[in-house]
Amino acid sequence: MRDFSQDHRWLSINTATVRKQRGQDWPLPQILDACAARGIRAVSPWRDQVAAAGLEATARQLKALGLALSGYCRGGLFTHTDAAGRQAARDDNRRALDEACALGAPCLVLVVGGLPGALAGKAVHRDLAGTRAQVREGIADLLEDARERRMPLAIEPLHPMYAADRACVNTLEQALDLCDALDPARSGALGVAVDAYHVWWDPKLQDQIQRAGRERLLALHVCDWLTPTTDLLNDRGMMGDGVIDLRQLRGWVEAQGYAGYSEAEIFSSGNWWRRDGGEVLDTCIERHRTCV
Amino acid sequence: MRDFSQDHRWLSINTATVRKQRGQDWPLPQILDACAARGIRAVSPWRDQVAAAGLEATARQLKALGLALSGYCRGGLFTHTDAAGRQAARDDNRRALDEACALGAPCLVLVVGGLPGALAGKAVHRDLAGTRAQVREGIADLLEDARERRMPLAIEPLHPMYAADRACVNTLEQALDLCDALDPARSGALGVAVDAYHVWWDPKLQDQIQRAGRERLLALHVCDWLTPTTDLLNDRGMMGDGVIDLRQLRGWVEAQGYAGYSEAEIFSSGNWWRRDGGEVLDTCIERHRTCV
Repeated sequence: MRDFSQDHRWLSINTATVRKQRGQDWPLPQILDACAARGIRAVSPWRDQVAAAGLEATARQLKALGLALSGYCRGGLFTHTDAAGRQAARDDNRRALDEACALGAPCLVLVVGGLPGALAGKAVHRDLAGTRAQVREGIADLLEDARERRMPLAIEPLHPMYAADRACVNTLEQALDLCDALDPARSGALGVAVDAYHVWWDPKLQDQIQRAGRERLLALHVCDWLTPTTDLLNDRGMMGDGVIDLRQLRGWVEAQGYAGYSEAEIFSSGNWWRRDGGEVLDTCIERHRTCV
Repeated sequence: MRDFSQDHRWLSINTATVRKQRGQDWPLPQILDACAARGIRAVSPWRDQVAAAGLEATARQLKALGLALSGYCRGGLFTHTDAAGRQAARDDNRRALDEACALGAPCLVLVVGGLPGALAGKAVHRDLAGTRAQVREGIADLLEDARERRMPLAIEPLHPMYAADRACVNTLEQALDLCDALDPARSGALGVAVDAYHVWWDPKLQDQIQRAGRERLLALHVCDWLTPTTDLLNDRGMMGDGVIDLRQLRGWVEAQGYAGYSEAEIFSSGNWWRRDGGEVLDTCIERHRTCV
């Protein structure tokens, strides 16, 4: 297992962690500068942030700063009730692939979507199995484009509390079942993003990480689970402030040969988003070295 | 599959559903009267409510009203860091068994506990696997007493969002693994409580219900998952107001031979607890007939 205590060369910052500080958007160019100034070597930006800064400008800035990507957030949202919706999602996912290529991302992270309409507060049906079948079709379809572009797809199972409205792939086992079905050769074109927040509770976690193996482990995201958790979406904890044994998790992932970044992804409307962005980045560095 | 549309003979009310209406505790004797007055045939009371009303008085009232129990809430909370805590839990669980017997419950529902200290906001360690091992020991120990009393234990897997602070048994598969380990003969002494709110998201739900079979299916709890859900604990929805396909779930359970009550258990600080208790009961009856 790698020693993270001496430096932060394997820290990546998911840029949602510092996307709006003290009520104001922190623009991506400034986030990238602030990361580079601290010797952070990698980031995982969100599409809306890249769109606001410009794709080509972002690619240039990343290159100039020597910043790598640990992933690109995000594609997916495959679940729709009509053909037009599915086609729009397909087109948008292809654009996401192209952007990921332009930025030199190692993978496009997929958040697959929940029951159609649920995120807006009104699911149009309760057919969870049918929705999951649609996700499978969507990934199968996108995988062809991803293979052409040599851009791996990383299915991110989300915590079961998001099954209704954000993603109906909710365990690592379920995600790996999809991988096995759609890429039985383990080609590297399809894998998973293991986010500690989503999977830490799973009694089968270690087994499924072993099952994933090196070819399927495309990203490792970290934050922490707070007790109490006061909001289902935006009350994630800084590494070390909660109950997740992050070092154990990293050990399991690295035992399979994973040697990539540990990406800090913290949505925190009540705490970290209220602070100065530089302070948040400094804290991520310190906790990366001491808690991850 | 039974037809629930014509009457509500298979409705049970978990008394937490109407425990505090409009800011005031609704005492158990009044809840029982209100249920019986509506032709509701069963309830599942909580220990603190029974303690407040008196165990013998409650037993007498249940008998006088002809009310059955669909379960007794609850035992468990096996996770402690010291021997004194474990012994106190053991003693308390034996009292819960005795109460369940006195009330004629069909089973004692077990909420197994989370990481020690987490419910109070400060977990004393992050050893989830060790905590789960302690739960297994606790159930094994209690099972001896339960067998003597012929009182079945129903392990209730809680939603993964409660893994840290309330129960570290989080899937039906995990609960059934415990059942298979501790009661391989499928004697009926150990089984599960299937609560729609906790398990609806699980991609393996149907398979695991089949695996459970009639001997292990001791209780069926229903409510609904709302989108959005604004509180992790007390924002459960009334049946029909959310995304859970309750009829499909009941069908799966009944396909295994389950022929017991459908127990409505709704914690709702923002909505149903703010209403008149009689209105809540009337709504449960209506939704039981139309949505379950």
